Amino acid sequence: MKKQNRGIVLQPNEMPDKWYNIAADLGGKMLPPLHPGTLKPLDAVSMSALFPDALIAQEMSGERYIKIPDEVMDLYSMFRPSPLYRAVNLEKMLDTPAKIYYKYEGVSPSGSHKTNTAIPQAFYNKMEGVKKIATETGAGQWGSALSFACNHFGIDLQVFMVKVSFDQKPYRKMLMNLWNGKVEASPSMTTQAGRDILSRQPDSPGSLGIAISEAIEMAVSDPSTKYALGSVLNHVLLHQTIIGLEAEKQFAKTDDYPDIVIGCFGGGSNFAGISFPFVRHHLDGKKKTRFIAVEPSSCPKLTKGIFRYDFGDVAGMTPLLPMHTLGHDFIPPGIHAGGLRYHGAAPLVSTLVNEGIVEAQAYDQLVCFEAGLKFAQAEGILPAPETTHAIAAVIKEALIAKAEKTEKTILFNLSGHGYFDMYAYQQYFDNKLTNFIFDDAQLKNIDKQTFPIELAFQ
Amino acid sequence: MKKQNRGIVLQPNEMPDKWYNIAADLGGKMLPPLHPGTLKPLDAVSMSALFPDALIAQEMSGERYIKIPDEVMDLYSMFRPSPLYRAVNLEKMLDTPAKIYYKYEGVSPSGSHKTNTAIPQAFYNKMEGVKKIATETGAGQWGSALSFACNHFGIDLQVFMVKVSFDQKPYRKMLMNLWNGKVEASPSMTTQAGRDILSRQPDSPGSLGIAISEAIEMAVSDPSTKYALGSVLNHVLLHQTIIGLEAEKQFAKTDDYPDIVIGCFGGGSNFAGISFPFVRHHLDGKKKTRFIAVEPSSCPKLTKGIFRYDFGDVAGMTPLLPMHTLGHDFIPPGIHAGGLRYHGAAPLVSTLVNEGIVEAQAYDQLVCFEAGLKFAQAEGILPAPETTHAIAAVIKEALIAKAEKTEKTILFNLSGHGYFDMYAYQQYFDNKLTNFIFDDAQLKNIDKQTFPIELAFQ
Repeated sequence: MKKQNRGIVLQPNEMPDKWYNIAADLGGKMLPPLHPGTLKPLDAVSMSALFPDALIAQEMSGERYIKIPDEVMDLYSMFRPSPLYRAVNLEKMLDTPAKIYYKYEGVSPSGSHKTNTAIPQAFYNKMEGVKKIATETGAGQWGSALSFACNHFGIDLQVFMVKVSFDQKPYRKMLMNLWNGKVEASPSMTTQAGRDILSRQPDSPGSLGIAISEAIEMAVSDPSTKYALGSVLNHVLLHQTIIGLEAEKQFAKTDDYPDIVIGCFGGGSNFAGISFPFVRHHLDGKKKTRFIAVEPSSCPKLTKGIFRYDFGDVAGMTPLLPMHTLGHDFIPPGIHAGGLRYHGAAPLVSTLVNEGIVEAQAYDQLVCFEAGLKFAQAEGILPAPETTHAIAAVIKEALIAKAEKTEKTILFNLSGHGYFDMYAYQQYFDNKLTNFIFDDAQLKNIDKQTFPIELAFQ
Repeated sequence: MKKQNRGIVLQPNEMPDKWYNIAADLGGKMLPPLHPGTLKPLDAVSMSALFPDALIAQEMSGERYIKIPDEVMDLYSMFRPSPLYRAVNLEKMLDTPAKIYYKYEGVSPSGSHKTNTAIPQAFYNKMEGVKKIATETGAGQWGSALSFACNHFGIDLQVFMVKVSFDQKPYRKMLMNLWNGKVEASPSMTTQAGRDILSRQPDSPGSLGIAISEAIEMAVSDPSTKYALGSVLNHVLLHQTIIGLEAEKQFAKTDDYPDIVIGCFGGGSNFAGISFPFVRHHLDGKKKTRFIAVEPSSCPKLTKGIFRYDFGDVAGMTPLLPMHTLGHDFIPPGIHAGGLRYHGAAPLVSTLVNEGIVEAQAYDQLVCFEAGLKFAQAEGILPAPETTHAIAAVIKEALIAKAEKTEKTILFNLSGHGYFDMYAYQQYFDNKLTNFIFDDAQLKNIDKQTFPIELAFQ
């Protein structure tokens, strides 16, 4: 029997001790965030109501590598380095010549990649004496990861959880409570932003954009409370690069290097985490790699949205970010991939899409669940509904490689396990899930609620 | 900040390639299983209706080490070597000088140690042309692990799942279905054994003993069907020794060696897996270690049962095994640790208890859930209800070490994660769980349904 190489393992002392800041390699291509009042580039001072200084510095940093603090390295070592696996069984099932590798982030406390940024965010807040943080969460991966981190550092946490997920995923709510996070369904009656939505639409399923408004409102109205975001912003994507940096070291132990890197796409953080360290070698011309961001076809900001300045939240409380957006009023349908129900895209990824370096693909809910189940049958790990989007693209690319008879190496990020999403899988088995068709007419008013890119140059 | 050593990692090529067979080191202390008809020592031929020859050979082997087949090594490498972690946060929470290490078996497909024996059992059946296997499962860890393995090797699987767990744990049932296992609640109307129980007690919660009767009946009544057991038997415990053999290699990378090894105890397989390789060094006098098997106080075969020959199942279809038992008629109450609801104990472990090498402790359901939640708060992994029993004992021993001001090194087996047991945790949070008191009067008729040990010497 031919010996297979399934697991590629790093020793704890091989874990990278710096994050990679891709902004350093994008030079003048990055547009600044704008202050929503003045429409001028945002300065550090105006962000300090929301974030501790260390995170603001990272958000605006031009340094290529940023040292990971010892305390963060220590907590990372509870679950990192995470394994890289060759999906040998899936390759056989698809009868493809492609080599499929996946980085498994489900090993973290709370079961997803979100812990990678939750730990440093809680740490930097702790270092600056912050007592309380407010945040939002979609499916609950971010809320549970931040609950774990805040509980460790003794910080109070208030989580606004998107209502459709609050109802669909009670067990992630339990996890947050276990780690002393307080959870409310969003829109809530606690904030003006929430009350406004509920007065217009009492049965609103909520959205990440609404929940962000609520969390920011709570943070700005109390000087002792800061805000934390689980995706989109530069510093969040920065922390996630530990994934790709580890994967790079793991590939160095094989004869392979990824021809294609794939991640599912909500706000952009897990995709950035797996891809940016490889984009780095693509940018410097040393390697040629395709990068595919995969989104739900019901929330298609990269494939159908437009590149404009837009708010990160529904109420228009955040800075204006240069990004692919469906408009900050867009409320995605209640798909089970709650972490992908976001109207915008991280500015760093949006820029790479504009540069033609990152491609985007969109898949329907049902084809994603089918792909997730195929993966679980072959490889034994049931992926989170978000992650099934990446797998749908992996299967498509592996079948293309088969048709073309090319031995492509595909890497994807298994961003989280689906063991708290069994209800969703049950719904799928019971034929109770449907696809949601995105109506292009929803884009017709997008110019009215977003701002032209030209603002950056005025 | 002092650098902590949380994860101790083996490379894939460091994985042990042999199982350890403790029977080789127990010499004349092991009593033979008896044929239930003749009451004479069982021979290989009478087991061949149930098991493939390779497993029967392992069951009766006196070899100290048995080579792990390449195909099994290959599938093991999907999730093994499993990590050994130092529970630094838990130590801090308990303010104990004890060093607490745990081996994490939740990384396997289906999320528990059961995969370690499911893979070789399915493999050996496949090698001998078996087309179908019947088995039982309690909480579903064994049924889902064997479903995964049988699906991989293309073997049909029928699972009889204990009714109380069938109702409590629908998501483990889904996992079995995902891997093409057919699942029925036990007692069922499919077998005579099931019908007999249901006619006497229509609302029977079921037990592992009943489910075993049903699976064996299905196997013996169809020549093309074999039977597989997830615990108790020598060959099952043998396969699990991969856990402790890895842990031994991992400890060799530290300055520590376990003073105490702890595992929860149902039939004995995860306890044997973590402990037997360390018992080996205790037996040869090279090391001195305490071994603690932890059972539910509502199913206390080791702490209150007696050492007799008894059937492994309710209907009396199995060979007679020399073991600590509560009587094969004993139906444990419906605790959530379904995998520990078994009346008997593996003969190998029973022998070590008789020899004074293994100690037993029993804990109530509520103290176990509390221990499991403490662990999850500190370490981020929610343990299966079975595993919480081991953790309750770990916490007790760590607090004793604190009182005695001794720096004990404690190792336990985190045999499985609890992400499919969130309903149980919800019940705990909602104050809907109770303890069950074992009534010693239940033992008064045990002599009538078991057989004296002296049979072995007639």
